[in-house]
Amino acid sequence: MFVSFEGIDGCGKSTQVNLLVNYLEEKGIPYIKVREPGGTHLGEKIRELLITQEMCARSELLLFLASRAQLVESVIKPALKNGKIVIADRFAHSSVAYQGCGRELGPETVKILNDFATDKTYPDIVFYIDVPVNVAMERMKNQHKDRIEKEGKEFWESIRNCYLKMAKENENFVIIDGTRTIEEIHREIVKVFNAYL
Amino acid sequence: MFVSFEGIDGCGKSTQVNLLVNYLEEKGIPYIKVREPGGTHLGEKIRELLITQEMCARSELLLFLASRAQLVESVIKPALKNGKIVIADRFAHSSVAYQGCGRELGPETVKILNDFATDKTYPDIVFYIDVPVNVAMERMKNQHKDRIEKEGKEFWESIRNCYLKMAKENENFVIIDGTRTIEEIHREIVKVFNAYL
Ligand SMILES: Nc1ncnc2c1ncn2[C@@H]1O[C@H](COP(=O)(O)OP(=O)(O)OP(=O)(O)O)[C@@H](O)[C@H]1O
Ligand SMILES: Nc1ncnc2c1ncn2[C@@H]1O[C@H](COP(=O)(O)OP(=O)(O)OP(=O)(O)O)[C@@H](O)[C@H]1O
Ligand SMILES: [Mg+2]
Ligand SMILES: [Mg+2]
Repeated sequence: MFVSFEGIDGCGKSTQVNLLVNYLEEKGIPYIKVREPGGTHLGEKIRELLITQEMCARSELLLFLASRAQLVESVIKPALKNGKIVIADRFAHSSVAYQGCGRELGPETVKILNDFATDKTYPDIVFYIDVPVNVAMERMKNQHKDRIEKEGKEFWESIRNCYLKMAKENENFVIIDGTRTIEEIHREIVKVFNAYL
Repeated sequence: MFVSFEGIDGCGKSTQVNLLVNYLEEKGIPYIKVREPGGTHLGEKIRELLITQEMCARSELLLFLASRAQLVESVIKPALKNGKIVIADRFAHSSVAYQGCGRELGPETVKILNDFATDKTYPDIVFYIDVPVNVAMERMKNQHKDRIEKEGKEFWESIRNCYLKMAKENENFVIIDGTRTIEEIHREIVKVFNAYL
C-alpha cells in the first residue's frame, strides 16, 4: 500500500505524515517514509541543485523526475514488494501542480513525463490537504524561504486550483480540510487509512 | 545554424569539433562550441552526478535531459538568435542512441522526452561519424574509462546500429566514414558545412 500527502507549502503535510508514521509505529505496522526530492543518495544531491542553482522550468521538472525515478526504483518498488506501507511526503502529483500549473509547463505534459519517471507506480491513496493560500502563507511566514517558496500569491493559487482539479478527476484522491486542528485532521486520515487497509 | 557531432565514444567527434572550430576561427565566422552534458553551470553539476553516482537508467536519461534543457534555454537559443553558428559535441541524438537503445529505454520514448527538453530545437546538420566498435575501442583503450564507458561490446553495437537507423531516417544526418585519417574526415566535413552555408 502506497500513500502520498499533497498540498501547497505550509498546508500541513509533514505534520500529518509524522503523526501517521507515529500511529504505524504504535501499531507495529511495517512502513517506510520517503520525501521528495530526496530519499536516495542521488535524490539528496538533486535536492541540493534544485535549491541552490538557477535553472529554467523544464530543467527544474526534469530534475524532480530524475530524483523520483531513482526513488521508485531503489526504494518504493522494493518496499511495496516486501509488503511495507510507503508513506510519501509529496510525490508525482506535486510536479503536475507545481511545474505543470505553477510553472505553466502544462499538467498533461507533466503527467506523461511522470508516467515515464515513475514507471507508472502511483499511490493507492493521495491525501490532499486543502487550505486557502493565505492560511498557508500565514503558517509559513516565519520560515526560511527557498527559491521555489519565494513566489507570489498567484503562483500558489494556480497550484491549489490544479490540486483541486486533480482531486475531482482522480478517485484515489481524498480531500482533507486542512484548516481544522492538527488532531482533527489526523483522526480523519487514520479513519480513511484504516478503511482502506 | 546549428551543427552537432554524433557517434560512439572514440569515433573522433571531439577531434573533428576542434578542427571545425579552428576553421571557423580562421575564417572569422562567429560561433559557439557546446558540450553535453555540461555547457552551463547547472550542466557541469549534472555531469558530475552522472559520472560519480549510482543510478537507474531512467534517472540517467532525465539528468541528461535536464542539462540539455538548460543548455538550449540559456546558451543555444540566444546564440542562434544572434546569428552565431552553434557547434555541439553531442546533442539530443546521443540520448536516443545511448539511453534509448544502449540502456533499452526505447528510442521512441526518448524522442518524445527530447522534444520536451529541447523545446524542439534540433540541429540543421548532424555529422554522424561512423566507425566499427572495435576501431573505437582500440582508440579508447589507454584512456580512463568512466561509468558509462565501461560497458561491453554488445552495448556499443546496439548504439552504433541505433545511430545508423537514425541516419537513414533523418535527412539532416550526414554519415561520415570515421575510419579514414583525421585530415580526410575534416576536409569532408568542411565541404558539407560550406555547401550548407
Ligand atoms: N492544522 C494545522 N493548524 C495550524 N497550524 C498547522 C496545522 N498543520 C500544520 N501547522 C503548522 O504549519 C506549519 C507548516 O506545516 P508543515 O511543515 O507540516 O507543512 P508542509 O505542508 O509540510 O509544508 P512544506 O510543503 O513547506 O513542507 C508548521 O509550523 C506547522 O506546525
Ligand atoms: N580519424 C582518426 N584516426 C585515428 N585516430 C583518431 C581519429 N580521430 C580521432 N582519433 C583518436 O581517437 C581518440 C578518440 O578521439 P576523440 O576524443 O576525438 O573521440 P570522441 O568521439 O570525442 O570520444 P568521446 O565520445 O569519448 O568524447 C583520440 O586519441 C584521437 O586522437
Ligand atoms: Mg513539509
Ligand atoms: Mg569527445
